[in-house]
Amino acid sequence: MKPANDTLLRALRRQPTEYTPIWLMRQAGRYLQEYNETRGRAGDFLTLAKTPQLATEVTLQPVDRFALDAAILFSDILTVPDAMGLGLRFTEGEGPRFERPVRTEADVRALAVPDPELELGYVLDAVRSVRAALKGRVPLIGFSGSPWTLACYMIEGGASDDFRTVKTMLYARPDLMHRVLEVNARAVTDYLNAQIRAGAQAVMVFDTWGGVLTDPAFREFSLGYIAQVIRQLDREHEGEPVPSIVFTKGGGAWLEAIAECGCDAVGLDWTVDIGRARARIDDRCALQGNLDPAVLLAPEAVVRSEARRVLEAFGPPRRADGAWGGHVFNLGHGISRFTPVDAVGALVDAVHQESRKIRR
Amino acid sequence: MKPANDTLLRALRRQPTEYTPIWLMRQAGRYLQEYNETRGRAGDFLTLAKTPQLATEVTLQPVDRFALDAAILFSDILTVPDAMGLGLRFTEGEGPRFERPVRTEADVRALAVPDPELELGYVLDAVRSVRAALKGRVPLIGFSGSPWTLACYMIEGGASDDFRTVKTMLYARPDLMHRVLEVNARAVTDYLNAQIRAGAQAVMVFDTWGGVLTDPAFREFSLGYIAQVIRQLDREHEGEPVPSIVFTKGGGAWLEAIAECGCDAVGLDWTVDIGRARARIDDRCALQGNLDPAVLLAPEAVVRSEARRVLEAFGPPRRADGAWGGHVFNLGHGISRFTPVDAVGALVDAVHQESRKIRR
Repeated sequence: MKPANDTLLRALRRQPTEYTPIWLMRQAGRYLQEYNETRGRAGDFLTLAKTPQLATEVTLQPVDRFALDAAILFSDILTVPDAMGLGLRFTEGEGPRFERPVRTEADVRALAVPDPELELGYVLDAVRSVRAALKGRVPLIGFSGSPWTLACYMIEGGASDDFRTVKTMLYARPDLMHRVLEVNARAVTDYLNAQIRAGAQAVMVFDTWGGVLTDPAFREFSLGYIAQVIRQLDREHEGEPVPSIVFTKGGGAWLEAIAECGCDAVGLDWTVDIGRARARIDDRCALQGNLDPAVLLAPEAVVRSEARRVLEAFGPPRRADGAWGGHVFNLGHGISRFTPVDAVGALVDAVHQESRKIRR
Repeated sequence: MKPANDTLLRALRRQPTEYTPIWLMRQAGRYLQEYNETRGRAGDFLTLAKTPQLATEVTLQPVDRFALDAAILFSDILTVPDAMGLGLRFTEGEGPRFERPVRTEADVRALAVPDPELELGYVLDAVRSVRAALKGRVPLIGFSGSPWTLACYMIEGGASDDFRTVKTMLYARPDLMHRVLEVNARAVTDYLNAQIRAGAQAVMVFDTWGGVLTDPAFREFSLGYIAQVIRQLDREHEGEPVPSIVFTKGGGAWLEAIAECGCDAVGLDWTVDIGRARARIDDRCALQGNLDPAVLLAPEAVVRSEARRVLEAFGPPRRADGAWGGHVFNLGHGISRFTPVDAVGALVDAVHQESRKIRR
């Protein structure tokens, strides 16, 4: 069923919209007092993510507070490797850690694709529960980490600043690296398709660490597997198309290649000029982005002028030839926990107002 | 006086060379046992950097061990803000910290350009001492952080993962940000010119954090001030030209603009395809880079094949029109402390051998 506000879905499919839709990466997060209260009740991050009722609550919070054009499922990109049995933990200050990282040939051979219905049921329950709670107001975006990004965490065992463990495997044992990525690609495909069947109306692949690779390695070890996932996604559900978004942080050099992977939209981090990105892709995909999240720490007048700058850089969505380019406004990275709530309200308001003006 | 091996200087100036010269960012570093021994004697990093005799010792170590084509002064990019009185400290695991970061309008107004002869004499003594110790074998590269990169540390007070303090100043008080950068640009200019007068035969500007900016902010707050520095550098010393290198990590989107700032060479991180970078710049500058430092953690056969891949991507330095493009082989980032010493030997050897083959 089409949501009452389907602006996001139309923009992703490069159809006319009255204004530029907006949602924010990590919009259900620590900058919101109500989020912190729910998280406090949950006790810890993983319980919050794994309890459908609580995940539903925090997913709805930003949609209730701001005039956002989409909800994004509250979850974590590491649910898939957790379901593979690697033992996900979150430690305060240190971020995610896997108790059993994938290091040896035997570890790699033991990896298996989880059945999302059996092993990630709490995510699918959350999708269904959010859809019910949204009552068709705005579309729900489902998501997953990319095969490469999941592999980074699985092999490093957690966050890294040099990725030397996963890169050593990549350079020294590309055969093992490919096997991990093959398993991950199948797992991500199954996971996203299960989210679509449960009610996700668009899906996004977060390739958070694609940008740490060399040019040939990005194409071979990250984008190749993203393309494999995108090719095998359900393109529609219950008669409605389900658009897909691919976001490689630090991927500005590869926008043309990403746009060719079969996705409907390409996410942009804030370092890219969205006007030049649009020209390079020539509106063959929609674009999502790309305000610097740090802008939200500045006074509201700056928030408004920087938002307008991004909208103007994209330009009028309607092209000279009458076709439409798609723009979904977003940050170039997740919202900072230090963001004042009023800045978000000002941003949503500015994007809606200014983008209507640009269309006139 | 021209060094016995002036291959680096010729490559930076796009003159014919018999092979592709190589040096490595952070080549005097913790992967070398002899470095760790000297550092142990010094007691701490800052004493090592501030004692010309010890800095000379570690600067020479990689040149003595490998057939590198250049020495780079052992120092730190934060010597300039330290000389401004911000109180630099290094804490184990945490990296550099300033005791008195620049946060308020009064802090900004109080900033002054240090006189390198008076306040950074230990660096100039090290330059003179290294030149004497090198006995003209290979050229010595001097360096500085870029005005923007120094400002990041000065305002954040240390390393950061979101740069929210400096970016808040940039967005909320661009007037103050510009004042900091104006002081830094003059300080960096004086500092590099003093290094040149003391004997540095090439200079490099490290714009480590230019890549965290949006497109317009990079041009305004980072590249604009780098260009100001480059324009005011002494172009020659004692009759010999002194080439300059500008390296913006994560700067792949801006290579054409960087190449126009007046520098002789543009540094590339490992995410860029050096062949496409060369085509974009059309040999108007030399290029320096760009092997992924993680390659050095793989077996030697991989080190050799990945080195060859970079050399082949650059292509024959001699162009179809008879002019020469310049390539200085380097890593795309500083060498990892976990690098096996033998991998470095294999890399230097491979670059020299393979680049001779490509010239045939």
